[in-house]
Amino acid sequence: MIIKSVVFDLYGTLFDVNSVEIACEQTFPSYGAKISDMWRRKQIEYSWLRSVMDDYRNFEELTEDALRYTCDYFGLELRAQTAVWLCDAYMRISPHADAMPAIARLYKARVPMSIVSNGTRRSINSVIRNASLEWAFEEVISVEELEIFKPHPSVYTLAEQRIKHSRENILFVSSNAWDAAAAKHFGFPTCWNNRKAVPFDLVGTPPTFITNHLGQMADLAIDLFG
Amino acid sequence: MIIKSVVFDLYGTLFDVNSVEIACEQTFPSYGAKISDMWRRKQIEYSWLRSVMDDYRNFEELTEDALRYTCDYFGLELRAQTAVWLCDAYMRISPHADAMPAIARLYKARVPMSIVSNGTRRSINSVIRNASLEWAFEEVISVEELEIFKPHPSVYTLAEQRIKHSRENILFVSSNAWDAAAAKHFGFPTCWNNRKAVPFDLVGTPPTFITNHLGQMADLAIDLFG
Repeated sequence: MIIKSVVFDLYGTLFDVNSVEIACEQTFPSYGAKISDMWRRKQIEYSWLRSVMDDYRNFEELTEDALRYTCDYFGLELRAQTAVWLCDAYMRISPHADAMPAIARLYKARVPMSIVSNGTRRSINSVIRNASLEWAFEEVISVEELEIFKPHPSVYTLAEQRIKHSRENILFVSSNAWDAAAAKHFGFPTCWNNRKAVPFDLVGTPPTFITNHLGQMADLAIDLFG
Repeated sequence: MIIKSVVFDLYGTLFDVNSVEIACEQTFPSYGAKISDMWRRKQIEYSWLRSVMDDYRNFEELTEDALRYTCDYFGLELRAQTAVWLCDAYMRISPHADAMPAIARLYKARVPMSIVSNGTRRSINSVIRNASLEWAFEEVISVEELEIFKPHPSVYTLAEQRIKHSRENILFVSSNAWDAAAAKHFGFPTCWNNRKAVPFDLVGTPPTFITNHLGQMADLAIDLFG
């Protein structure tokens, strides 16, 4: 296997979606973790549902919808200003501790890197800029122009087209099992970075590699780079 | 609004998906509720994911996949025979307490009733037969022939075609918010039977009616029948 490029998922893979927990806890004391968990779960659910029912709203809109549902569910009043503030926190989530060193090593080894994300271009750019990572990526691919979310095959097709290598030479990296499963099913060699040590979901195709730290992924990618 | 026919979702609406909890508890003491909850959640997730990634497996297969994932997640060994036994319990889930009286009342009022379900024909027939409800339904519509699950619009289109009324005269009844949201988005007047008193999900279109008991739904349907 020869890898010519690495493409990363953003939310949950390079960046920690639970880093909004602190902002949630500040706003709604003792509900921080509960809100952060359900907020993310509903955000993902809504992206799948809107893709199946063919009723697109962009990632920022469904992030806000997911937050509204979550506060409603817990019986918490969400003021307009608070919604803006919390959704803004989502635009500045933190990278996972293993992300920056892995990106730096791949960059040093001249492995081209890209992003393919369900986020809007604005969200993706905000998160990358906030982590001062603008220098790292060749292609930053948002589903926005397709108006459908991963794991729809058209998103993986778009990534292959933009990265301009054939799929078997692009290592797809995701910590979201469903994303890795669909990417492998599409034909990318895939690394599932399983930080939480959970079983792999029984959809799509099992990943080529399973790691629990992006450092291991960087080792693999550098080994296979050619 | 004139209603000429009522179409029900099956799993979670007329039948109680948590009635497998007892069988789960017998097999894995103290894990009954946890397994039953995650089993259902994963079953639904897998139906959405397989629809988005265009990788169909039928409802019985993904019910078994969801059970395997769940047992793996909790670190419980699932023997082949146990998997068969638990999946068989899913073929004989119990009706909700409010389902049978509501069906009987609609039948007496000569309101035609149908089913549209993500289940296989075999699963749907098994559940209906087990509750001795074969007499109740004019059309029993499975997604099997489409090889895609609700909330894909083609499923609601198939229901409209089979029931042979135009969509604005068919009352769609579901306890699954995402199903009701998509059905209303498609154009059915929709009753969301919200037994669990949770907020409505912010996808699709809000339902025409919200009830918390199928008896209220029967009142509505009989009132509007013409």
